[in-house]
Amino acid sequence: MPPASSRKTTRASKSETAPPLITLLTDFGSRDAYTGIMKGVILGIAPDARIVDVCHEVTAYQIPEAGFVLSQSFRYFPKGTIHVVVVDPGVGSERRPLAVDALGHRFIGPDNGVFSMLLREAAANSAGRPPYKAREITNRKLGLSALSSTFHGRDLFAPAAAHLAAGAAFTTLGPLINDALRQDWDLPIRTGKRFWQGSVFKADRFGNLISNFRAADFPLANGAFELQAGLERIRRVRPHFAASTPGELFLLSGSSGYWEIAANQASAAKMLGLTGGSPLELAILG
Amino acid sequence: MPPASSRKTTRASKSETAPPLITLLTDFGSRDAYTGIMKGVILGIAPDARIVDVCHEVTAYQIPEAGFVLSQSFRYFPKGTIHVVVVDPGVGSERRPLAVDALGHRFIGPDNGVFSMLLREAAANSAGRPPYKAREITNRKLGLSALSSTFHGRDLFAPAAAHLAAGAAFTTLGPLINDALRQDWDLPIRTGKRFWQGSVFKADRFGNLISNFRAADFPLANGAFELQAGLERIRRVRPHFAASTPGELFLLSGSSGYWEIAANQASAAKMLGLTGGSPLELAILG
Amino acid sequence: MPPASSRKTTRASKSETAPPLITLLTDFGSRDAYTGIMKGVILGIAPDARIVDVCHEVTAYQIPEAGFVLSQSFRYFPKGTIHVVVVDPGVGSERRPLAVDALGHRFIGPDNGVFSMLLREAAANSAGRPPYKAREITNRKLGLSALSSTFHGRDLFAPAAAHLAAGAAFTTLGPLINDALRQDWDLPIRTGKRFWQGSVFKADRFGNLISNFRAADFPLANGAFELQAGLERIRRVRPHFAASTPGELFLLSGSSGYWEIAANQASAAKMLGLTGGSPLELAILG
Repeated sequence: MPPASSRKTTRASKSETAPPLITLLTDFGSRDAYTGIMKGVILGIAPDARIVDVCHEVTAYQIPEAGFVLSQSFRYFPKGTIHVVVVDPGVGSERRPLAVDALGHRFIGPDNGVFSMLLREAAANSAGRPPYKAREITNRKLGLSALSSTFHGRDLFAPAAAHLAAGAAFTTLGPLINDALRQDWDLPIRTGKRFWQGSVFKADRFGNLISNFRAADFPLANGAFELQAGLERIRRVRPHFAASTPGELFLLSGSSGYWEIAANQASAAKMLGLTGGSPLELAILG
Repeated sequence: MPPASSRKTTRASKSETAPPLITLLTDFGSRDAYTGIMKGVILGIAPDARIVDVCHEVTAYQIPEAGFVLSQSFRYFPKGTIHVVVVDPGVGSERRPLAVDALGHRFIGPDNGVFSMLLREAAANSAGRPPYKAREITNRKLGLSALSSTFHGRDLFAPAAAHLAAGAAFTTLGPLINDALRQDWDLPIRTGKRFWQGSVFKADRFGNLISNFRAADFPLANGAFELQAGLERIRRVRPHFAASTPGELFLLSGSSGYWEIAANQASAAKMLGLTGGSPLELAILG
Repeated sequence: MPPASSRKTTRASKSETAPPLITLLTDFGSRDAYTGIMKGVILGIAPDARIVDVCHEVTAYQIPEAGFVLSQSFRYFPKGTIHVVVVDPGVGSERRPLAVDALGHRFIGPDNGVFSMLLREAAANSAGRPPYKAREITNRKLGLSALSSTFHGRDLFAPAAAHLAAGAAFTTLGPLINDALRQDWDLPIRTGKRFWQGSVFKADRFGNLISNFRAADFPLANGAFELQAGLERIRRVRPHFAASTPGELFLLSGSSGYWEIAANQASAAKMLGLTGGSPLELAILG
């Protein structure tokens, strides 16, 4: 789902004057000053950077959820945007800090698999060219002078992103690596000729359960499938919420590009007792 | 409660250089990337737009609450601000996307009644001129190329606002309409010579219950009224929190312009078991 | 923990063009439009101000928690930043509105002790010069024309900060005062030769319990201390989360500069049943 072409045109004509854009995606929540502090650090280094919060309510430590949210959101930002992701249960350990240049965007975060979906998409779209460049962030001059063992968002990732925004070359971050962690936790598994094992990426605010069945890969139609979700078997596709009866469970080809289990003005997550990570079983009929 | 005159002066002198301002008011919550994605779309079209979050925690699908919050907030922003409202249970159905030019501001959102309070205020202040202009947003060139059935905030409302911010004329959005939905859910109902039926607009974070009795319309004083709220009858007005005793329930002429049921350092909402939509009965005494 | 020297250099060269920066720290939460309204007021007065949310989820009315969060965050913003703090249970009473110029930053908020940690730090770093300047905000021309009794964040503090950002001199706010409220609620109390009574500043999103034992003042090492926290006695220091076993309770020299009670991928707060304000007892061994 790339943005409209009209948008690209607009952007091209303004790209010289647009200030650098940095997005933040973390599991820091909102009850602490952690994200505010990261913004202070960024603005100290890159005073004209624009900072956008993508989401700070990723479930704590849930790398797959963060990877999914990143994959959903980055493409709606202008090319050249720097995306900082801090979901980092291994902070302070040997896991590497990573910078990735892919798909026209740049990404900063821990090398813990959070960029898996992104790297696979880049590889699928590379058309023979190198799909992406990944660098381990080793240049300590680009971080704060004291590196804490628990808050690399503040001490390392935010400063690295800010220096990029302020004009530092991508190459100055550190050496190229070719083994950035890439995992396949987001792909459905084929379990039979007509059967697939999938899972819930996450439940959104409205209780819609976003599955990992991509709508383009699984063109489901009424009567041609069954989706086992918790104790319920779902057989209906609806074009939008208002086309269903209140409380009915149905599949929706959601704004995410994936099939979503939804209910009209009710929470499918609560009705089914499912959440991020819950298993789903899809059977293709006839 | 228009802002101070000193502010207007300041604004006038700076209006040429001030970047365009867009506010966002939704029921999207904070656990997903939906609002972040809208910002990415906006900044792709209007790179110099300033974006301000008004509130994203409107109770899901509660159009009246969203209308109240909009009415409370828009007037504190500079004239010319573009306010995007996405509380949209009818997304994907036939409900029209709407743009309104009123009271010196512009508003973008679904035609589901969320602009009712605003349109009534505009009509009351029109002084013979047309009170507002409402246009159905039909120009698909102003949205993203693919329109999802569930996320018009991303695909339609954010792009329309951004194109306005980037200089598109209001007239390019679509044709004028004269039947924008306007409802009276926010007005107290007279039930007797001295009796009024009202309701709670919403409970705020502190548990203050904001009623729909406008302080200017109901000049209440100690001993001259009784307000039935749940199982309690409230008879006291206090000038501010610190003038009450801890735990006491009282009425406050709140910062909202409406009477609020409050308690000093305690939640009136919890004490009374009330929330947005709860009924209130006001009796004016002798 | 002052920011890195490299950052200072970058800042100095850009300070002329950087827009004024205002941070917001409140207990307003996210379910209302209160913080959005403050931003509207600010941008009406200072259209080019940059506004950063530090945190709006301070526990309602908890002045010490707000003071701690402010002390944690302000130093990561560029010098010259204006920090607005609205945790204000005494709003509408005789408590004074205050502006403080200290440590290269400016602070706006109620004179209720929320600046205590800051003022003490300024005094400790004054090197013979006056440590800070505090002014009572009495100049009503700098606020909105109507002062509500409950929302000085909107009517007084945000406008005052915005006028500073727009170039008003600090001296125009009001007269110097020398009795700004300063309290010592954040300091551990010595209860014996080897014993200290401390407390929890706050539990963060991950359930880490941030104590008021400053790591620099209490150089704890394995085997040389015991910390009584709820029903548990903690004796271990770990360098980072990944160095502990899942579920183990340990002390961490946190990113806050204070000792934090932590557990690897678990909530120490839930395991111990503690939260902000809970008492701690530290014994230094042998």
